[in-house]
Amino acid sequence: MSKHNIILQPSGRRGQIDEGTSVRSAARELGVEIESICAENATCGKCMVVVEEGRFEKYNIDSKRENLSPVSTEEAAYFARRPKLLKDKGWEVGQVRLSCQCKVHGDVLINVPEESRGNKQIVRKSAKERAIEIKPSIRKYYVSMTPPNLERPIADWERLAKGLETSMGLVHGTDANLPRWYDLDIDYACLRTLSKTLRDAKWNVTVSVWQDKEVIEVQPGYVEDSYGAAVDIGSTTVALYLCNLRTGELLAAESEMNPQIVYGEDVMSRIQYAIDQPDGLEKLHKAIISTLNKLLKQAVKSANMSLQAPARQSPSDEGIASGTPALAGGAREEQKRPRNDIKVEEILEMVLVGNSTMHHVLLNLHPKDLGLAPFVPTIHKSVDIKARELGLHINPSGNIHVLPTIASFVGADTSAVILAEEPHKQDENWLLIDVGTNAELVLGNRKRLVCTSTPTGPALEGAHVEYGMRAAPGAMERVYIDETTLEPKYKVIGVEGWNTDHAEFIGHVKGICGSAIIDSVAELFRAGIVDSRGKFKKGLSTKRVREGESGWEYVIAWKEETSIGRDIPITQQDVRQIQLAKAALFTAARTLLKRSNLQSPDKIILAGGFGSYIDKEKAMLIGLIPDCELENVYAVGNAAGDGARIALLNVEKRKEIDSVTRTVERFELPTDPEFQNQFMLATSFPHMSEPFEHIAHLIPNRKVDPLAKNFMK
Amino acid sequence: MSKHNIILQPSGRRGQIDEGTSVRSAARELGVEIESICAENATCGKCMVVVEEGRFEKYNIDSKRENLSPVSTEEAAYFARRPKLLKDKGWEVGQVRLSCQCKVHGDVLINVPEESRGNKQIVRKSAKERAIEIKPSIRKYYVSMTPPNLERPIADWERLAKGLETSMGLVHGTDANLPRWYDLDIDYACLRTLSKTLRDAKWNVTVSVWQDKEVIEVQPGYVEDSYGAAVDIGSTTVALYLCNLRTGELLAAESEMNPQIVYGEDVMSRIQYAIDQPDGLEKLHKAIISTLNKLLKQAVKSANMSLQAPARQSPSDEGIASGTPALAGGAREEQKRPRNDIKVEEILEMVLVGNSTMHHVLLNLHPKDLGLAPFVPTIHKSVDIKARELGLHINPSGNIHVLPTIASFVGADTSAVILAEEPHKQDENWLLIDVGTNAELVLGNRKRLVCTSTPTGPALEGAHVEYGMRAAPGAMERVYIDETTLEPKYKVIGVEGWNTDHAEFIGHVKGICGSAIIDSVAELFRAGIVDSRGKFKKGLSTKRVREGESGWEYVIAWKEETSIGRDIPITQQDVRQIQLAKAALFTAARTLLKRSNLQSPDKIILAGGFGSYIDKEKAMLIGLIPDCELENVYAVGNAAGDGARIALLNVEKRKEIDSVTRTVERFELPTDPEFQNQFMLATSFPHMSEPFEHIAHLIPNRKVDPLAKNFMK
Repeated sequence: MSKHNIILQPSGRRGQIDEGTSVRSAARELGVEIESICAENATCGKCMVVVEEGRFEKYNIDSKRENLSPVSTEEAAYFARRPKLLKDKGWEVGQVRLSCQCKVHGDVLINVPEESRGNKQIVRKSAKERAIEIKPSIRKYYVSMTPPNLERPIADWERLAKGLETSMGLVHGTDANLPRWYDLDIDYACLRTLSKTLRDAKWNVTVSVWQDKEVIEVQPGYVEDSYGAAVDIGSTTVALYLCNLRTGELLAAESEMNPQIVYGEDVMSRIQYAIDQPDGLEKLHKAIISTLNKLLKQAVKSANMSLQAPARQSPSDEGIASGTPALAGGAREEQKRPRNDIKVEEILEMVLVGNSTMHHVLLNLHPKDLGLAPFVPTIHKSVDIKARELGLHINPSGNIHVLPTIASFVGADTSAVILAEEPHKQDENWLLIDVGTNAELVLGNRKRLVCTSTPTGPALEGAHVEYGMRAAPGAMERVYIDETTLEPKYKVIGVEGWNTDHAEFIGHVKGICGSAIIDSVAELFRAGIVDSRGKFKKGLSTKRVREGESGWEYVIAWKEETSIGRDIPITQQDVRQIQLAKAALFTAARTLLKRSNLQSPDKIILAGGFGSYIDKEKAMLIGLIPDCELENVYAVGNAAGDGARIALLNVEKRKEIDSVTRTVERFELPTDPEFQNQFMLATSFPHMSEPFEHIAHLIPNRKVDPLAKNFMK
Repeated sequence: MSKHNIILQPSGRRGQIDEGTSVRSAARELGVEIESICAENATCGKCMVVVEEGRFEKYNIDSKRENLSPVSTEEAAYFARRPKLLKDKGWEVGQVRLSCQCKVHGDVLINVPEESRGNKQIVRKSAKERAIEIKPSIRKYYVSMTPPNLERPIADWERLAKGLETSMGLVHGTDANLPRWYDLDIDYACLRTLSKTLRDAKWNVTVSVWQDKEVIEVQPGYVEDSYGAAVDIGSTTVALYLCNLRTGELLAAESEMNPQIVYGEDVMSRIQYAIDQPDGLEKLHKAIISTLNKLLKQAVKSANMSLQAPARQSPSDEGIASGTPALAGGAREEQKRPRNDIKVEEILEMVLVGNSTMHHVLLNLHPKDLGLAPFVPTIHKSVDIKARELGLHINPSGNIHVLPTIASFVGADTSAVILAEEPHKQDENWLLIDVGTNAELVLGNRKRLVCTSTPTGPALEGAHVEYGMRAAPGAMERVYIDETTLEPKYKVIGVEGWNTDHAEFIGHVKGICGSAIIDSVAELFRAGIVDSRGKFKKGLSTKRVREGESGWEYVIAWKEETSIGRDIPITQQDVRQIQLAKAALFTAARTLLKRSNLQSPDKIILAGGFGSYIDKEKAMLIGLIPDCELENVYAVGNAAGDGARIALLNVEKRKEIDSVTRTVERFELPTDPEFQNQFMLATSFPHMSEPFEHIAHLIPNRKVDPLAKNFMK
């Protein structure tokens, strides 16, 4: 197969690429991520690239437009809808291409414009300090043995097991003819190194026993601490928490973009990728495994860097198993200084959570049936697998525990949120909402829990919105519109204060992230620029409202304030996207409330990074969340990650969540007869038929009479 | 690295070999096995090869003696001790080489003489028909499910598990909050294919459950039979038995040479090889795994060839789990015809036995400490491992069960012999002897079992005897000497009748195998050619007794009768070897008897192929086994293989043998204070101080007065 040279600017990455590779695939191979949301369907335009022409002596390549496949009908159609973009940028079709569509047939020099680049995201997830009762699945025992001799040449394992029995009082043995330790197992990988370890250690070792039934590690001498990792695999971000399993202490928190994002932005695109590509699942699976291995390494490094030098510790004759509850991050014995030479192989367990697609891909289970009706996962119950089976680089004998899934679109991440927030232990009715591309909702209390999920679309996270983007440097994160002047002000990630606080503002604004989109729409409504049906009003005295390329729009940032050389507006289309998303979310919540015979929840808990950054008042103003006392709306951050940590540190919690998730009632919205009708009512701001008393004072034309229900007529 | 051409005659195998490779390694790489017993220490001389000189146009090579490394001091010493051999063959040192010593530095043409070739052995092990109660570890259940729909999109595993619970009455569940099937597991490899299998099968499947706790196979439709394999890994021969787990029927028995033999003839040489070579264990382990995979394939092929075409079978609503005992090889329902399309992946379990070294190498455990004082195995208790962990090609979710070891030199093969013969259920005292390079002995009854082992040396199997060889074509297997004429007659493997039955005998005799060596020595003693101390008598009227190169000897076959062009004698040295071997075995038996306060056993059971071929009267005449009624001496063939089959077909037997082996008392002979003295007394024929009443009539000079105890003075 012939190869071609490709150079990517401005990164300067270059390499040889197989004939016929798409430019986006080629870039991925060379380590340059190009955005994509539409699963390479030539509809999102996020992957635009520019072909530079000429003979580049320095690189010895001859780049011509003809060295790429001809512009496809789909590409042509995409650009035909965007004449202004082409004019503004001074691009011709053929010079600008959708990198997912065009294939390399000769040497090319490609420029990847800033807006197309897949940047490293600012990760907002961080572990919350919680009081967790420490009951890890792993207990350590110090065993000192008499070395074998010719009179007593009993085998190594039996010698060790006998030592465990006598010194630690292990009670085992289902058969009266067999000794008490006979039911105790040793993992095969651990058995393979046993004889050498015992001799190297001169018969004094520390043994790690998993769930009182299997020896998974034998270390020379006296070792006090074990380590574990809790992981939340989000579609966008993977967050890993390294913990000391004895003290519960959080030693490091690391996160990375989910590398699967190059195969599709949302779970549906990735499922489609796994269906379409023969090796699609394998690629997705390997991508997440290698990122987890990278995070493990990083976390251990961070932990070692932040910890002091180890103090000398003396062995205890009675061993060191600790059944005493301890508080995570709480007071520890000060005299013992923590180690700073932790190794990845000393991590003995991982607990992972993620939505059902992430769960399946992690376990190398094909996600096909998650994406096709009737939407069925392979397994609900929690899974325990040896680390080596998944290729995770913790101790090969270590256990990988994956929390249970509840439904095809209510995954192990929701199980973890339940475990962290404990609605099943409340008298009040709580509504848990985990918002992402998909929203999962759980409602109820100790008597009953109901759940559902709804595709909110990527609009709430900034995608499918003309200038939407993820929460990354250059993204607007807050927007306010003065209801008199109709002038906006905004905040940008990476810039201090509001744009109006700076005399000569150069924000290098790239786009609008989720929280600012909600702000914008709410502010447009509050300021009377769009009406309750979401339509732009005509004849307002501001040049910011104008008829743009694809209809009416409100310009938040002029092009001088941006780094992309274009005005950044919120368009009529964007408002419609938000209306659809919020209607879906609201309808899901209303459905659960109705099934539970409730008018409103006692408390709303917003989980996920998104929930932490949206303005709850504005979210309520557009009707994204049900009406509720504002002080009873809580953002709890990465509750899924917290739930994973809880399950890591307390083995009893694993049984608890397995048991609770079995009782959660699932409702599939499309099967609800009133769904369509409810959805239509919910598209209005804040809602066509709900009072929304708690934010009534913000609703235009309703300030006078918040009880008027027919105000929209 | 430079390469050289090497051609091996007479096989004609040729190839390119790295500079510096030994000729023996080169031959192995090219698939030509050259014998070796001394672990390449230049002492056994079994690996002799001849360098052909000249320019061989046809092969385009230039073979010179100088193309090999110079004759080493060890090689020179070996040949210096054998001037007659060199003279007889017409060889010079330098032309004849020890292939383990000489290294290739240029192109060479090498002739491998017949006596150096590692031939395919005639395998005498065969499965004995035994009544085994069938209680396999695997039960099959037929489950028919309602396909999922939008109203009931429960996950695949939960759907299947629920089906198992309701249709088969599985009682599980240790937690009241969880359903009864919740403790049921599914193996990860099986889970990975579950969703596809269920859909392909249209939700009607047969599920194989291991030990009532783990689903290990899901097959489309109704499937009745499961398959398993029992394996006896001998140091020399690996025997595999393919069984139907439902009926217990033996479907095929296959055997192969243990490929590890190229790394050393006996276990000590292989342990040494594993110690000396950095990748020694890996090579030994991979060799046995690949042979097991080959045997599995062969066995399935043999079974399919011997079975008839499958009949159509109808599913039963109640499933097909069978707890009914059946007799192996006994009457089966005639109306159902067995399948002839068994696949290796349908083999769901293997049970393996072998001596402790074979056990360790199979499990990839380093055998170092088995060979060094105080001789300690890594583990005694039985081991269960997933097939995929060992790289065995049965169903990847299938279980590999390895029987327990008793001591460093009393391995899982002895456990299997105990399981097959059941001394632990007898009132009488039985003496079990498994003779190989090492002999394992178990003595006792239901109240007490004692065991020991002794290195009998390879003499009993034909090695370390000047013309000794394994039981292969061309080996003498029976010898008789007329006490008047002192003329011998003998039988050769592959030739009908005695040599004297043929008018002009051309036996192509290559050497003497174990049974014929015992015959020879016993006959030399009975005919009065050697005395009770094992010394050749002088002045006898036969030219067959002569002073040979290494002392006195008795020629059994003249060189015209052989294929090696040399007379084949039994030498004084050979008699000494047998004396040492039989003294070791007898002393071990006597030690166990003494520890059990017994004069003689009620029954002697000889296990192993060797036991089946020796003449028990002659074995007793030389004092190899203790005195006992001859009709109470039994040869049971491959009892270790039988024990493996029993454990395969009856899961309760696994617990039984785990339990029994824990109670077997081990005696280490070297720690017995009387050992040296007893050993010396036992070197005489039949013994210096034992009456041997049952063969007294055969003892020269004692026919008159069998009670005379001081006849040897």
